[in-house]
Amino acid sequence: MAAAAAEVSNKGVTLKRHVVGFPTEDDMELVTATVRLTVPPGSAAVMVKNLYLSCDPYMRSRMTRHEEPSYVPDFVPGEVLTAFGVSKVLESGHSGYKAGDLVWGIIGCEEYTLVTNPESLFKISHPEFPLSYYTGVLGMPGLTAYAGFFDVAKPKKGEYVFVSAASGAVGQLVGQLAKITGCYVVGSAGSDEKVNLLKTKFGFDDAFNYKKEKDLNAALKRCFPEGIDIYFENVGGAMLDAVLLNMRLHGRVSMCGLISQYNLEQPEGVRNLFCIVTKRIRVEGFMVTEYFGTYSKFEEEMAGYLKEGKITYVEDVAEGIENVPAALIGIFYGRNIGKQLVAVAQE
Amino acid sequence: MAAAAAEVSNKGVTLKRHVVGFPTEDDMELVTATVRLTVPPGSAAVMVKNLYLSCDPYMRSRMTRHEEPSYVPDFVPGEVLTAFGVSKVLESGHSGYKAGDLVWGIIGCEEYTLVTNPESLFKISHPEFPLSYYTGVLGMPGLTAYAGFFDVAKPKKGEYVFVSAASGAVGQLVGQLAKITGCYVVGSAGSDEKVNLLKTKFGFDDAFNYKKEKDLNAALKRCFPEGIDIYFENVGGAMLDAVLLNMRLHGRVSMCGLISQYNLEQPEGVRNLFCIVTKRIRVEGFMVTEYFGTYSKFEEEMAGYLKEGKITYVEDVAEGIENVPAALIGIFYGRNIGKQLVAVAQE
Repeated sequence: MAAAAAEVSNKGVTLKRHVVGFPTEDDMELVTATVRLTVPPGSAAVMVKNLYLSCDPYMRSRMTRHEEPSYVPDFVPGEVLTAFGVSKVLESGHSGYKAGDLVWGIIGCEEYTLVTNPESLFKISHPEFPLSYYTGVLGMPGLTAYAGFFDVAKPKKGEYVFVSAASGAVGQLVGQLAKITGCYVVGSAGSDEKVNLLKTKFGFDDAFNYKKEKDLNAALKRCFPEGIDIYFENVGGAMLDAVLLNMRLHGRVSMCGLISQYNLEQPEGVRNLFCIVTKRIRVEGFMVTEYFGTYSKFEEEMAGYLKEGKITYVEDVAEGIENVPAALIGIFYGRNIGKQLVAVAQE
Repeated sequence: MAAAAAEVSNKGVTLKRHVVGFPTEDDMELVTATVRLTVPPGSAAVMVKNLYLSCDPYMRSRMTRHEEPSYVPDFVPGEVLTAFGVSKVLESGHSGYKAGDLVWGIIGCEEYTLVTNPESLFKISHPEFPLSYYTGVLGMPGLTAYAGFFDVAKPKKGEYVFVSAASGAVGQLVGQLAKITGCYVVGSAGSDEKVNLLKTKFGFDDAFNYKKEKDLNAALKRCFPEGIDIYFENVGGAMLDAVLLNMRLHGRVSMCGLISQYNLEQPEGVRNLFCIVTKRIRVEGFMVTEYFGTYSKFEEEMAGYLKEGKITYVEDVAEGIENVPAALIGIFYGRNIGKQLVAVAQE
């Protein structure tokens, strides 16, 4: 036991300062601490070895200093960032976990984390899949896509579905879930390579590169001559304005995120809100955390789709904890192709 | 019968030209036509004498020329305007109506109208109330308030409700329905006189004059230290932006209209939409026309509230068909105190 408590090196990534505007790699810092790979006596904490870290858009909000408490706590300069990730339990003071368990949940952006609220972790039931999937299709982004599409948008077979940021972690899944449901699905993305992926890999009926469209309204009219029943909203701003003009009666906007706005000091104004009245549109926001209680059911259903080949998943994997800053920054520039994550260690 | 078919004078109001920006009285014209007060042989039309005409915000949209069909047809320059109103049947070619019936529905802004689609009319079941109430509390605005509050906003006892344009035809009713439901209700209006009316006549818990508030966000924080559960949206623009900052988790915005925007060539941009995600807000538009099938049930319930003294109603009545232009323009400047209508004739 004494040997197990020897200190080891623990590299991690901290925030150097709160961020205004676009974050840069220099806003973060790679630091090396030491840690004893053990749980303090009497503690119900769990010591984990981190295998994969997830880079998600909501993390941008945490890099800002908010005057009033935000929906997620601000990161504290000098402290290691936290993120969703996949880990292996090394030692557990909690009766629900034992050494060797594979889990996902909120961990530190570091090599080893002492998780002091292990109730927040989820056990991994399907280790036959790549474990990295638990940062995506089988983890938080997967549940986000599933809940935001089925529970919020309430799709019906034959409806017209538009997904923005469609090749991202959530978007690629929403499109495929829409196809499974029998919808007509179009996605937008920020490069021809991503557009090609949507059409060839994810089975979208159509897709366009929004950066090449002079007129988003015209692009949507071209793709949806009959209009849009469901908009799965990941970006906000000008795209939302154009979508509102093209919604059908009783359309639904499932508002997942507004990534185009996160680095702006002031959000863009959206002007076409009167369409919400005239077309009786429902715009509804949601947070995946409210669906965590349904995770097991989701995990089984999504595992089934993966096994049946009905869902495919594309990841963009950076290697090494030192690449967290670049990987995280990259998602705000759309550099990633598919779900961005960082591989920290082998199991 | 030959005598009944004699021509009589029929004064009405036409649109002279489509309107850009704020309409003026000069955009409309009082014209005098002649009409035979009879129904053409074999026709299922109904000839009515118009008693009251309703001035409603949605009419502004009809004064604009739209490139693509709007949610309500554009008015045609040179033709008599149409509006909701209360009428008495003079002669009927339709088996559902007979001379002497009192009805409300879409009629011409004129003294007599041949209604060619009488199925669109509603019979008046409670002539013991002032008939003008059928342009308001017992008519389209009443059903708008009822449906938009109960069916769209789905209020619960104890919730915090904010109503904009709160002394108007719809707003004053939403506030009183909210009180009946056991909610805490605050309204905004554009003059101290209206604010006083909200607090003394309609039983709002609090109210403020938005024109006197430098900071709408601060005004809402003062009135709703715990935040807003339901926003009944009649105005849009800066007020909506401020409301979004003050909504509570799982709040609902029942979007009835955006009158602050109707005379702008380009609508204002609303910036705080990310609150919809973080607070999981539902923003939902609706149109009263979709609730017309439930009118009878509504009429009975509202008549009951009026008889019990649980609902009171304030009208702003202009006299004479020639005052339709001024009355209609007035609502866009907030000149009316309570429901604006025009008394055209005695029964």
